[in-house]
Amino acid sequence: MATGEAEAGTAYRPPTVDVEALRLLLDGKYRDVRDLVRADLAEHAAVLDEAETMSQTEFRERVKDLVVAMSETGQTGLGFPEEYGGGGDLGASVAAFETLAYGDLSVLVKVGVQFGLFGGAVLMLGTKRHHDAYLADVVGGRLLGCFAMTETGHGSNVQALETTATYDAATDEFVLTTPHDAARKDYIGSAAVHAHAAVVFAQLEVAGESHGVHAFVVSIRADGGLVPGVRVEDDGLKMGLNGVDNGRLWFDGVRIPRDNLLNRFADVTGDGRYESAIENPDKRFFTMLGTLVQGRVSVGGAGINAAKVALTLAVRYGVRRRQFNATSDDEEELLLDYGLHQRRLLPLLAENYALHFAQEVVSRRLHEVFSTEGDEDDKARRELESRAAGTKALGTWHATRTIQECREACGGAGYLAVNRFSALKADTDVFTTFEGDNHVLLQLVAKGLLTDYASDFEDLDQLGMVRFVAGQALETVIERTAAHQLLERIKDVLPGGDDEWDQEAGLLDSDYQLAMLRFREEHTLSGVARRLKRGIDEGLNPGEVFSRAQDHVIAAARAHVERLVLEAFVDKVATVPEGDLRTSLALLCDLYALSTIERDRAWFMEHGRLTSARSKAITREVNDNCRKIRPIAVDLVDAYGVPPALLRSPDLL
Amino acid sequence: MATGEAEAGTAYRPPTVDVEALRLLLDGKYRDVRDLVRADLAEHAAVLDEAETMSQTEFRERVKDLVVAMSETGQTGLGFPEEYGGGGDLGASVAAFETLAYGDLSVLVKVGVQFGLFGGAVLMLGTKRHHDAYLADVVGGRLLGCFAMTETGHGSNVQALETTATYDAATDEFVLTTPHDAARKDYIGSAAVHAHAAVVFAQLEVAGESHGVHAFVVSIRADGGLVPGVRVEDDGLKMGLNGVDNGRLWFDGVRIPRDNLLNRFADVTGDGRYESAIENPDKRFFTMLGTLVQGRVSVGGAGINAAKVALTLAVRYGVRRRQFNATSDDEEELLLDYGLHQRRLLPLLAENYALHFAQEVVSRRLHEVFSTEGDEDDKARRELESRAAGTKALGTWHATRTIQECREACGGAGYLAVNRFSALKADTDVFTTFEGDNHVLLQLVAKGLLTDYASDFEDLDQLGMVRFVAGQALETVIERTAAHQLLERIKDVLPGGDDEWDQEAGLLDSDYQLAMLRFREEHTLSGVARRLKRGIDEGLNPGEVFSRAQDHVIAAARAHVERLVLEAFVDKVATVPEGDLRTSLALLCDLYALSTIERDRAWFMEHGRLTSARSKAITREVNDNCRKIRPIAVDLVDAYGVPPALLRSPDLL
Repeated sequence: MATGEAEAGTAYRPPTVDVEALRLLLDGKYRDVRDLVRADLAEHAAVLDEAETMSQTEFRERVKDLVVAMSETGQTGLGFPEEYGGGGDLGASVAAFETLAYGDLSVLVKVGVQFGLFGGAVLMLGTKRHHDAYLADVVGGRLLGCFAMTETGHGSNVQALETTATYDAATDEFVLTTPHDAARKDYIGSAAVHAHAAVVFAQLEVAGESHGVHAFVVSIRADGGLVPGVRVEDDGLKMGLNGVDNGRLWFDGVRIPRDNLLNRFADVTGDGRYESAIENPDKRFFTMLGTLVQGRVSVGGAGINAAKVALTLAVRYGVRRRQFNATSDDEEELLLDYGLHQRRLLPLLAENYALHFAQEVVSRRLHEVFSTEGDEDDKARRELESRAAGTKALGTWHATRTIQECREACGGAGYLAVNRFSALKADTDVFTTFEGDNHVLLQLVAKGLLTDYASDFEDLDQLGMVRFVAGQALETVIERTAAHQLLERIKDVLPGGDDEWDQEAGLLDSDYQLAMLRFREEHTLSGVARRLKRGIDEGLNPGEVFSRAQDHVIAAARAHVERLVLEAFVDKVATVPEGDLRTSLALLCDLYALSTIERDRAWFMEHGRLTSARSKAITREVNDNCRKIRPIAVDLVDAYGVPPALLRSPDLL
Repeated sequence: MATGEAEAGTAYRPPTVDVEALRLLLDGKYRDVRDLVRADLAEHAAVLDEAETMSQTEFRERVKDLVVAMSETGQTGLGFPEEYGGGGDLGASVAAFETLAYGDLSVLVKVGVQFGLFGGAVLMLGTKRHHDAYLADVVGGRLLGCFAMTETGHGSNVQALETTATYDAATDEFVLTTPHDAARKDYIGSAAVHAHAAVVFAQLEVAGESHGVHAFVVSIRADGGLVPGVRVEDDGLKMGLNGVDNGRLWFDGVRIPRDNLLNRFADVTGDGRYESAIENPDKRFFTMLGTLVQGRVSVGGAGINAAKVALTLAVRYGVRRRQFNATSDDEEELLLDYGLHQRRLLPLLAENYALHFAQEVVSRRLHEVFSTEGDEDDKARRELESRAAGTKALGTWHATRTIQECREACGGAGYLAVNRFSALKADTDVFTTFEGDNHVLLQLVAKGLLTDYASDFEDLDQLGMVRFVAGQALETVIERTAAHQLLERIKDVLPGGDDEWDQEAGLLDSDYQLAMLRFREEHTLSGVARRLKRGIDEGLNPGEVFSRAQDHVIAAARAHVERLVLEAFVDKVATVPEGDLRTSLALLCDLYALSTIERDRAWFMEHGRLTSARSKAITREVNDNCRKIRPIAVDLVDAYGVPPALLRSPDLL
């Protein structure tokens, strides 16, 4: 078999993949939860057809009914305390959510709105009185809610929201107001039709003083109609996710009891005093936001899992579809035996595995941080937030790119709705935007790195960050970054000294691969610090300094996250006993590492870490690796365990 | 104004753009045709809404009615001879089609099916008897047809189609048969509902001998029903273009008169003899296909123009939307004043301009080649086919990437259907696949380069190409490529010798930029030739040799087309008199050239044509160029002249 030979004339024996064992490895600790969701999705697979055949109105109802029905199985409430009918296991909750991404994504997002955003805000920002009042009904699907944060005028910059909540001491109420049209809440899932309650984010004003953005539980529908003072407009048809009823909300002097302030981090007393244990208003705001990190973890995982559906279809089509005579005059060649086709799909497959294991780490950290009651380790929380932001950005971009490439790899057939790509593309498109625009998230990551998650890190907007960095010694900024410390360590592992470590190491040595990514991270990060300082020293406006360094800021953040992803993959491979399973994963891990270095090989050459010859050798190694993975590619996608009923695609499989 | 300063402290005066003058320059020779289509699209702008509100069935009717109505204005028949009601101007026909891409793309594709594919096949492959019988009704929209080439099992490899047309001498008829399900015609636009006739491509068999694929006019619907023996199945819902009724066709012994063979290149006599002036069956087949090149030219232009709509929206949103305080504490920053936002959008804008002018060249060549009756310059035709294939591939990938980036640059608002991106994304997605899968097209380009459009070039499948190249002296292959000759010439222009020419030249010197792209083209092409020869010398199977060199094959083709695109842009700039208009275009041309080099700077470093320092300088220059273009960005998109009624997007503009 031609493609089974990694080098001409050299026999290559591909590893034998135990698909079930690999699936269990991927499923990890929460394999039972994932199987429960798989079974449920397969049972309701008809919803994939209904998304195409029903009207928007009908489909919204269908999705809502499904979400309510699922809430009764318990799989949507795993993250809530058991006393309210939940499962008391945040990690399980993320695993369930991720697996939902194999099915219809309106269902996934509707679940996310109800249990992650709305329920999550009540749980994380509220106190016992709110939990007692709402959580059992939220978990049971009896109280449907929405999460009214984004406004038409402010999405990324949440701190600048313009809706106001003014305390009226005379009635002991808050008065919610939308001051102008750009301050209407927008794109709010479940707001157009289904939500009876909303968690509304608004600028709190008490006795004429503004205290920044706080969250309130607001009843928006009752007795079959809207609550007086609430105006709703339907966002109408969207590119995808049309089973979710997104809408706009205006508040015209809507009054709510004082108790409806979600008061875990701040409160207003009956006599009109504002109280908070966190004095700094910026820190308070970002502490509140930080508790909602689960949303980003969930969306990142959803993107990674949606991409698995696309990869399953494209890889399996690639070993079925033949086109053109290539190696034989009698039979046309299988698509996946073409070098280019391998190049198009297999590095994405490797990246998907890498992101899967990186996501596993994020999800575990989330579980740990939020299960450690009372122990408020600020730095651990900020590192989690940064890691969640970065993994969400890479995971959702991966989804967009992978689904697109897989669609093209299935040709015209990929364009028919029955073959899944249509919905996958349209539904996941907004993942790169919601729960934080990916570029803004990577800036957040860079900010954390540049300030070493300093205690006042959260106070800093872009201007603040530039000033902060500019105000410190360059060495301080650089030396305390984690990347720098890791780089120091790697020099003990690899043979060469400062200038030599990268010259002789084997390309398939994961210490070498990690050292390359660590070097890039440390270097891009210190480069950003240098640019920011130099700009300020030259007397430029800090905003202009930031704007000019912005592509480097993003590159540094991406370098950091890619290093974390590779580490997660390398660590995982190390846990697997010697054998074919480990060999298979190691091939994927090498492919991820080398194709990541290859993609940025220009940078490595510019910075003296790759010679031309070595750079070309990496490209050869990537090709070789693709040929080695080709014989096991189908097993690798089968191990994702996407239920056949969810693949549809009668003409592809 | 901070962004108006290309270098800190240096005053930069952006050129003043005369938007109307620039629009006329872009519109070129066929400005009146383009204005006619613009006016018509604006008049029927409601179809953009109807695409969302109507059922699939209703919308198909609406689009069909619109296409018929447009045929009455003459704008869809410009490419047909005047004697049949056409305009007798192929260039005008392409210009009209390209402009349709500003509007609903189902309308565009339905027009393409009727007048480009169906009518075009009758015109190009038929003779006077077919023209007299059909063309007036085709042009007038009275006879709707479809183009039944692709089968479920064969799309890219058209030569291997399996539908048969067997001559029955007893009745003087051809008998059409679909031998098995994979040979059904598939994805055929207008087949599901509207087409009464089809041009069917089938293997011609006469007296037990096969003569390869030929085209036949087949009546498929009559008297309100299907013609006996024809079976139709609806392709159902697609990702986009749902105003076009794609379907599948099976033929079960369908009989058609002998006259229905489109016999320009081959005929069957009444006594059952096969005749053709072109003896070689491969050459005959590719000559037939070559006459249909207009389809590829049209789709490439449509992609480029659809991207203009997305760029118009994203750039204009970028100067309206503010987010985060950056340069000022009082006012948030405009998106387009962020360096990264400029980086995301402006190189795509420059690429769009470059492709526009490259498309203008392809369209002109098309017009010239097909207007030169009788003068059968084979090489000119093949060069046109290659150029059309390459420009189609780059133009449609540009569309996919640009529309995606523009959507993301508009955030959540970009996800609402009313803001155009939804339809733009879904409708254009298949452009990279239809009229030839882009990768297959680039292989075609590479084949032409490697064989210097040899007279037997068309005979060659992948195996044949490998054998052809392997059978020649390497020097012969390399030296006769156009790229090599161009490279020789450039050395006279730039100061340095063989090893030095790239060291001292200014980055903004277009001779330098062109020389870089020519060097890359020549080098990648000779690299491919070398690999192919070496593989064969080592005794590998030619298919395996091809598979392993395939990524280089594609890279060489891309390098070639990008060089053609840059040349087209440089040539156009040279025609514009000194002044602000020329300055504006030169900025864009530099940005296209430098960002193209930057994207592949790893390759240039690997091949000794960029030092690290110079590579970094190119990145700086790209950033600088973006800052210089920023103040005129809105003018540059306004010059596209997309009618406001077609932009919709009340919340973006």
